[in-house]
Amino acid sequence: MSKQEKNAVYIGRKGTMNYCLVIVTIFNKGENECTIRARGRSISKAVDVAEITTKRFLPEIVEIEKVNIGSEELEGDHGLKTVSTMDIVIKRKTAK
Amino acid sequence: MSKQEKNAVYIGRKGTMNYCLVIVTIFNKGENECTIRARGRSISKAVDVAEITTKRFLPEIVEIEKVNIGSEELEGDHGLKTVSTMDIVIKRKTAK
Repeated sequence: MSKQEKNAVYIGRKGTMNYCLVIVTIFNKGENECTIRARGRSISKAVDVAEITTKRFLPEIVEIEKVNIGSEELEGDHGLKTVSTMDIVIKRKTAK
Repeated sequence: MSKQEKNAVYIGRKGTMNYCLVIVTIFNKGENECTIRARGRSISKAVDVAEITTKRFLPEIVEIEKVNIGSEELEGDHGLKTVSTMDIVIKRKTAK
């Protein structure tokens, strides 16, 4: 399991602030990177989490490194279903 | 107004396929780039539109060039409200 996978935060049904706090905790522990992952309707919430964490909570400390979008096939009730996915990589800013 | 702004597709309340068709039409007219823009809850739909257009409708012709996320302050009923925004730039693939 890569370092990136270790610090993956999967966005689900909890409130936005729950995920923001998970990310703040990851960086407070000294980690240098984390990846926010979301699928389908949770993608909007993933963007909110990334923006709130990087602009409001840790603006001096972290930044958005990259945003990737893609698709995945999921087994649904009526066969395979394609859902959109998103990964947002948040990284500790390098010391100036 | 920049070329990019000219070909901006704003994601709103219409069905996903409506926006996909707008983008297919833009590229069929010979344009080389278009930008999908969305705010708040529409961000998930913007990703669906980008994925369907680039993977299903025009896989040989266009690709996702970049994905940017940000925030905007909007005048709401109870003062200023911050909403997340997303821009997805779709570009014609260069001839091989």
